[in-house]
Amino acid sequence: MEKLIYGVAYYDEYMSYDRLEKDIQMMKDAGINMVRIAESTWSTHEPQNGVFDFSSVDRVLDAMHDAGIQVIVGTPTYAVPTWMVKEHPDVLAETPAGKGKYGARQIMDITHPTYLYYAERIIRKLISRVKDHPAVIGYQTDNETKHYNTVGPNVQVQFVKYMREKFETLDNINKAFGLDYWSNRINSWEDFPSVVGTINGSLGSEFSKFQRKLVKDFLEWQVSIVNEYKHSDQFVTQNFDFEWRGYSYGIQPDVDHFEASKAFDYTGVDIYHPSQDDLTGIEISFGGDVARSTKGKNYFVLETEAQAFTHWTPYPGQLRLQAFSHVASGANMVAYWHWHSIHNSLETYWKGLLSHDFEPNPVYNEAKTIGRDFAKLSPKLVNAKKDNKVAILVSNESLTAMEWFKFNFTSTKNYNDIIRLTYDQLYKMNIECDFVSPISENIDSYDLLIVPALYTASDELLKQLNTFVENGGHIVYTFKSGFTDENVKVRTAHQPGIIDEACGIYYNMFVEPKNVSLKDDPYQVGEENNTVDTWMELVTPTTAEVLAYYDHPHWGKYAAITKNNFGKGVATYIACIPSEAIMAKVLENAVKDAGLWGVDQELRFPLITKKGTNQTGNTIRYYFNYSDDTLSFTYPHRKAQALLTDQVIDDNQEIEIDPWGIIILEEQ
Amino acid sequence: MEKLIYGVAYYDEYMSYDRLEKDIQMMKDAGINMVRIAESTWSTHEPQNGVFDFSSVDRVLDAMHDAGIQVIVGTPTYAVPTWMVKEHPDVLAETPAGKGKYGARQIMDITHPTYLYYAERIIRKLISRVKDHPAVIGYQTDNETKHYNTVGPNVQVQFVKYMREKFETLDNINKAFGLDYWSNRINSWEDFPSVVGTINGSLGSEFSKFQRKLVKDFLEWQVSIVNEYKHSDQFVTQNFDFEWRGYSYGIQPDVDHFEASKAFDYTGVDIYHPSQDDLTGIEISFGGDVARSTKGKNYFVLETEAQAFTHWTPYPGQLRLQAFSHVASGANMVAYWHWHSIHNSLETYWKGLLSHDFEPNPVYNEAKTIGRDFAKLSPKLVNAKKDNKVAILVSNESLTAMEWFKFNFTSTKNYNDIIRLTYDQLYKMNIECDFVSPISENIDSYDLLIVPALYTASDELLKQLNTFVENGGHIVYTFKSGFTDENVKVRTAHQPGIIDEACGIYYNMFVEPKNVSLKDDPYQVGEENNTVDTWMELVTPTTAEVLAYYDHPHWGKYAAITKNNFGKGVATYIACIPSEAIMAKVLENAVKDAGLWGVDQELRFPLITKKGTNQTGNTIRYYFNYSDDTLSFTYPHRKAQALLTDQVIDDNQEIEIDPWGIIILEEQ
Amino acid sequence: MEKLIYGVAYYDEYMSYDRLEKDIQMMKDAGINMVRIAESTWSTHEPQNGVFDFSSVDRVLDAMHDAGIQVIVGTPTYAVPTWMVKEHPDVLAETPAGKGKYGARQIMDITHPTYLYYAERIIRKLISRVKDHPAVIGYQTDNETKHYNTVGPNVQVQFVKYMREKFETLDNINKAFGLDYWSNRINSWEDFPSVVGTINGSLGSEFSKFQRKLVKDFLEWQVSIVNEYKHSDQFVTQNFDFEWRGYSYGIQPDVDHFEASKAFDYTGVDIYHPSQDDLTGIEISFGGDVARSTKGKNYFVLETEAQAFTHWTPYPGQLRLQAFSHVASGANMVAYWHWHSIHNSLETYWKGLLSHDFEPNPVYNEAKTIGRDFAKLSPKLVNAKKDNKVAILVSNESLTAMEWFKFNFTSTKNYNDIIRLTYDQLYKMNIECDFVSPISENIDSYDLLIVPALYTASDELLKQLNTFVENGGHIVYTFKSGFTDENVKVRTAHQPGIIDEACGIYYNMFVEPKNVSLKDDPYQVGEENNTVDTWMELVTPTTAEVLAYYDHPHWGKYAAITKNNFGKGVATYIACIPSEAIMAKVLENAVKDAGLWGVDQELRFPLITKKGTNQTGNTIRYYFNYSDDTLSFTYPHRKAQALLTDQVIDDNQEIEIDPWGIIILEEQ
Repeated sequence: MEKLIYGVAYYDEYMSYDRLEKDIQMMKDAGINMVRIAESTWSTHEPQNGVFDFSSVDRVLDAMHDAGIQVIVGTPTYAVPTWMVKEHPDVLAETPAGKGKYGARQIMDITHPTYLYYAERIIRKLISRVKDHPAVIGYQTDNETKHYNTVGPNVQVQFVKYMREKFETLDNINKAFGLDYWSNRINSWEDFPSVVGTINGSLGSEFSKFQRKLVKDFLEWQVSIVNEYKHSDQFVTQNFDFEWRGYSYGIQPDVDHFEASKAFDYTGVDIYHPSQDDLTGIEISFGGDVARSTKGKNYFVLETEAQAFTHWTPYPGQLRLQAFSHVASGANMVAYWHWHSIHNSLETYWKGLLSHDFEPNPVYNEAKTIGRDFAKLSPKLVNAKKDNKVAILVSNESLTAMEWFKFNFTSTKNYNDIIRLTYDQLYKMNIECDFVSPISENIDSYDLLIVPALYTASDELLKQLNTFVENGGHIVYTFKSGFTDENVKVRTAHQPGIIDEACGIYYNMFVEPKNVSLKDDPYQVGEENNTVDTWMELVTPTTAEVLAYYDHPHWGKYAAITKNNFGKGVATYIACIPSEAIMAKVLENAVKDAGLWGVDQELRFPLITKKGTNQTGNTIRYYFNYSDDTLSFTYPHRKAQALLTDQVIDDNQEIEIDPWGIIILEEQ
Repeated sequence: MEKLIYGVAYYDEYMSYDRLEKDIQMMKDAGINMVRIAESTWSTHEPQNGVFDFSSVDRVLDAMHDAGIQVIVGTPTYAVPTWMVKEHPDVLAETPAGKGKYGARQIMDITHPTYLYYAERIIRKLISRVKDHPAVIGYQTDNETKHYNTVGPNVQVQFVKYMREKFETLDNINKAFGLDYWSNRINSWEDFPSVVGTINGSLGSEFSKFQRKLVKDFLEWQVSIVNEYKHSDQFVTQNFDFEWRGYSYGIQPDVDHFEASKAFDYTGVDIYHPSQDDLTGIEISFGGDVARSTKGKNYFVLETEAQAFTHWTPYPGQLRLQAFSHVASGANMVAYWHWHSIHNSLETYWKGLLSHDFEPNPVYNEAKTIGRDFAKLSPKLVNAKKDNKVAILVSNESLTAMEWFKFNFTSTKNYNDIIRLTYDQLYKMNIECDFVSPISENIDSYDLLIVPALYTASDELLKQLNTFVENGGHIVYTFKSGFTDENVKVRTAHQPGIIDEACGIYYNMFVEPKNVSLKDDPYQVGEENNTVDTWMELVTPTTAEVLAYYDHPHWGKYAAITKNNFGKGVATYIACIPSEAIMAKVLENAVKDAGLWGVDQELRFPLITKKGTNQTGNTIRYYFNYSDDTLSFTYPHRKAQALLTDQVIDDNQEIEIDPWGIIILEEQ
Repeated sequence: MEKLIYGVAYYDEYMSYDRLEKDIQMMKDAGINMVRIAESTWSTHEPQNGVFDFSSVDRVLDAMHDAGIQVIVGTPTYAVPTWMVKEHPDVLAETPAGKGKYGARQIMDITHPTYLYYAERIIRKLISRVKDHPAVIGYQTDNETKHYNTVGPNVQVQFVKYMREKFETLDNINKAFGLDYWSNRINSWEDFPSVVGTINGSLGSEFSKFQRKLVKDFLEWQVSIVNEYKHSDQFVTQNFDFEWRGYSYGIQPDVDHFEASKAFDYTGVDIYHPSQDDLTGIEISFGGDVARSTKGKNYFVLETEAQAFTHWTPYPGQLRLQAFSHVASGANMVAYWHWHSIHNSLETYWKGLLSHDFEPNPVYNEAKTIGRDFAKLSPKLVNAKKDNKVAILVSNESLTAMEWFKFNFTSTKNYNDIIRLTYDQLYKMNIECDFVSPISENIDSYDLLIVPALYTASDELLKQLNTFVENGGHIVYTFKSGFTDENVKVRTAHQPGIIDEACGIYYNMFVEPKNVSLKDDPYQVGEENNTVDTWMELVTPTTAEVLAYYDHPHWGKYAAITKNNFGKGVATYIACIPSEAIMAKVLENAVKDAGLWGVDQELRFPLITKKGTNQTGNTIRYYFNYSDDTLSFTYPHRKAQALLTDQVIDDNQEIEIDPWGIIILEEQ
């Protein structure tokens, strides 16, 4: 990337009347230098089977180019046209709920040859047409691609072949998955039942893995087609999204982002987050840290909110704060969903930069300041690098397996809630971190690993983590880690499986805490915060030091949190779900033990700081005020220049920061 | 009508043993002068395909006639016999949930020729048989007719033809409905997808409109058949019902009562309402005001509760209060669902006037006093007319559209809740009102219009409303009015669309209020009541006076309630959902501005007054005590006679009214 | 039975590695003398259609026999193999939700000849192979058998034939079920609609009765096959279960345990119950009292919890307390689900005696003490008999009917909640009781009957109950009793139907209580407990004495609780749902009236006592402390020997009992 990209999704096709010139003028006024087009409008571009009409693409490309605005062209494959479904109803995915109905996007069977045939044709037609256009800087394949839970007979046949390829014999499967249970044993390949009704979590988890592979295969296939056309100075990206919990947070259950990112030049993501009084920056930071980690480089925020919904319309200052927060996490692009508010259909109230009246409004006006400052500071901020020493190990497999094996019959807590319990505390103490996955090859490069609920893992991975500690690394594990092998079969030895060696503990019982706290409040968090909920393992130390015991009449002899020196390193084990306050203290201690505690950690949320090394080798420091109050702090680093104000800031200078305000410093 | 009708639904067919003579004697004792029969028992009247048995009808008609009780005969078409479904399973409606199952009533496809063939045959057989019977005063076609969400392929074909008739070209539809969005564009009539899966609210709303038309067409068809037989002194009516929210309140989503009433001689309705401590009379008044407004004349309450459920069994006095409340709203009939409690099946606990033991009971005994007083006062009370100056503009189309576009992802508030927010306050300040719909031709005859959430409306209608104000009318609008055109496409100019002219305001942003009140409590409602919830538009006045600003750190500069002089009239705009107390004040001020505030408005709920002009031109005034306490008030009108006691009441006389009591006065 | 059986479910097939010898050694250490095998693993025993492999059965039988452990062999029919469903998909039950999917257990159509053919073959193969093995003491047919809501066309045909057999003519059905309502009348057998969609509670209830008959027929068929093979010293049992409400409590809706038990030598049950702070023993006692009553003899607890779930893992002492509580209720067997925790699939967290690591753990160690004491005390405790004078009359038919006719639209209270309201109070005042059903022939042998909500009952049964009272018996009825006949048709005479004679009351109205209490707190339970909820009948006494009036401004003249001398006996009627405290007082008074109040009733929960007469004719008395505190009491009976400590206890001796402790005394 040569510069920070400030963009919007733009659909000339959705306009009620011809506004292209007017829109472009308003974009220019706001510093918008990129639009993303085409990925949702197959039925416009191919109005009938084999009849193509790219006129709206052509005219937008030409007009944007004239205005100096660059374009990302999306393949329009995630929403199928009416004619295709009418001619070939079986392109709709069959899901556990039955055959799909036309209407929404993302309803097709991404493995179906009919769909693939038409998808390939429109991709080739579109990309070959636009590839030489000077406005085009890159391509997005599809959008927020998933498997849409396609489980029809054709998918089932593929799955069985995948299983035979992977496990070779049914006896291996029967044994690994424990299929004797409830007569689920499969004794002939012809008998392999549809997984739709399965009650076997090992089989179900394997199918989810297979489904994630379908997504990866589909995306790689699209990339391979686009790559036939794209020029060397053009890129291919995807718009990945995170677990959707009314906003973006957590590992995506349906896609392995680490695997699927490999095929792309850049990882792109969308990040939607709470706003107004609930704006914390956590979701921005989380999504950015994951996106950056997938390829170990800067990433794109292909979609984030402008005005969005009634509960997300930003207060004055927040849109700016959000934009620079993305950049501070390593984003080279901030793009809004979407330019203008749409006048019909599902996303009418998912408002864009412009309201339905297309007039300037307070949010658009604030965007103008962002565009101006992006343009001005781009050389200083683009392509900034990070060198984090802390990483969180995340696992799609553990996420899926914990959906099959929930904490209990009523808890709605999932794997991402456990990640969140760790990540949010790091964020609030200004510890920047990366993410690694079981396939990452750079795990050993970190000083401190956080391993939340690694519920399913191979012996090899767990041994690798033991060796990591032995060699001087620090790990903080939570409960449930090591419990099952890679086939979600519970280990038959002491728990926590294999990592018991590094942790110096064992347990074989676990209970639900009711009115349980940590004995004598060892972390001094006060009665209100000295709590444990949902899950507690009854841990006995072997070589570990007990950091906290449970306070309970019958379980009081068991350890809740332990620490063990193993080789040159240290392994901390958290055997229960503690309060955020306790988790913060445990992580703080682990950070300190690992020698990673610094002056930045003396600042706490809502004052957030991030840093990076820019293209010229200088350290860039961001300070964000995630509150409605003015904050002040003593600047603890080398003399620096405030890039938005051109002030010079001295070491130990007292700095004020406005509500929802931003300071960006470049060390000199 | 010559008299007040006091009736019951009666099913000789449901009786466990022959009770006809005994029942008739008990009816006579209670002053029951009408029974409604036959509309639920097709399988009894046509036990096999083409085999008819009307013996129960015959014997009831004869016996009733002998006793001087008149009869309404219903066409038995809303519950189909077993033999029809067994022979022709496809008469069952296919809904979005799939093919129907036999069992309940109202499960057939009202457009299916097989059903229509059999329905026509039974109607002709039944009506031709009874038409000359002297007991028969009229007919009810079907019952609580709706479309039952029939959406099968045949309905879809009809819908596509309807669309072509209405919009002429697909381009018109694609543009009006914004179908380019998410590739929903339809480029050939053959491609028109089933609307079942649609995510396009414009298309979905149009389909609902089409479905309401199916109901209207079906009813008109039935009426046209019955009209071939009926005598000039017999009437045809329907039993319309309202939104069902555990009781009757609100515009019916599935039927346009204003349209569908046209074919009938009288509008009939059923009104079920909370009782015991929750009896307020609001539902009685609302349903009555709508029913009366549909044809601008007196109406029938074809069904209301007798004992009903455990939570509705009336306290002593309440059944009387309810009955006269119906009459006070303009009902010429009060009829109970139903005479006796049923001993099997779904409505066993929906109890009638008689309990399962058929013995006199406290509710039946109270009915005897009602029957006696109806008979006595009928000449004074029947056919009373109203001359209201306030009307509420309601719109089925806005109701449907707001189902597609809800306030947010969690709110359950719907369009009828907004109507309720306005209507209930008028009721409680004793403002009687009518209802008008977009097709009403008498809108200009009112002094004050209340226009709640007119979310979808044509330019013409909105301009008509502007002209109404310009010519001296008063309007109170709420938020969301004018937002979309008649195709539920958001207007692309300033909001509120078109009416911004009369309102003298504009907005293009809206947010969800959290901890928002009106600045400085302008309506003096106190902290507890000074609240705004769910929805707030950020309004800027152009020519309007701001009546209230929001109290919020970031949105405080925007107006919450405004008033604008436009031409000779005044338009008030409420930009948020205020508390009931605030709404009451805003409406009170609007009523005063319109010069409609009178002495009756000094009385407040639970003391309710209604009035009308009777056949002899005298003013009848009703006073109702909707509470468990004795109330007193100073009678503010001309000398009058108390019809239930024959007392004379002087102007300014102090009057006491019993708990759940009634006073009826005729001015002299 | 010669001895107390202490057992576990054991699945060699589920083991990750060969542990048989090790497991048996650990079982021996724990005093386990029985294992239950084979009932879940059809796909292991018949890996392909007609290919059999009983090697795991053989080796377990041999090894257990060598170790002196006896074996119950289960027929493996409740979970079908993959090959069967692949070859014959129609063996899966069609339910109201549609065709079943392979995966879970208990998904087949138990009436399908294909299933029955394969089931019979595997039963004959298995049982003929094991019948002569000296380890085998008995057989279990299937497991927790139900009808799985099979409602496909074949079942419908059977149902219609059943109906014709039972009712002879459609006119009889139409009349008994009130099918004229909503045109549900059936006028030709060919027209008989599927009951899946019915809205007629009489028809629906009859279908449920038919479904329960399917279960009984299926079990009888299995027993008849097994009986062809079994030796005279072997038994056949079933594992019945109770209503599942997250734990076991209440009459089973899908099986008539009284009917279905007849075919078996012993009634077996599974009982799962809350634990930790929520352990009360109520579920153990309830399930045991029902199981014992079905055949009037000792029963088996074929499954109960060992460690189970996080919320059920027992505190120290609780596993012992539970085991002896079962025995105190008359169980001759206590067996755990299951020996070892399973490493895959649905019940991974339903932990066994052993955790996943197979190591000794606190729960297993406690089991060792139980096994030791069972062995020691078996001659004293096995085959103990009870002679209860109180019985609760329960009715599957009333349970089903009250599902069709719930208290109101929001209440989730069901029939079993009403049973619970009575049973729990008896338990807490140490009144041991039996259960009887409408088919029981020993009803007259009791002194006091509790009859909760006998909503549907024949005239004959109600008259029998009147005669019971007339002859000197005592009955406590609750509301809803007698309301409908055996076809769930509401009686057309005074309520409570027929029993009004013995109760000396009538009512024909009922309402929902809001803020209702009993006038003047007649039971002295204090304001907090003086409450009535959900349901109240407005009762007028004829000859009855009113024990309590409602406190309500409008319903205050009606009786809430009455008592009537009828012949030589007394009938108490509770017309509303009172608080537990009121119910306890009413029952206490009824017990006293019946002359059944004794010294044991001076002890109250959490101190629970049970008694029986052992094989040598001595009285055995159990004292259980269901609390976390030490309790003490004065022993009120004859001198006795404490069997666990060999102490001698004198009359009036003060005794201490540990938290969750047990004392077992044998009178001398």
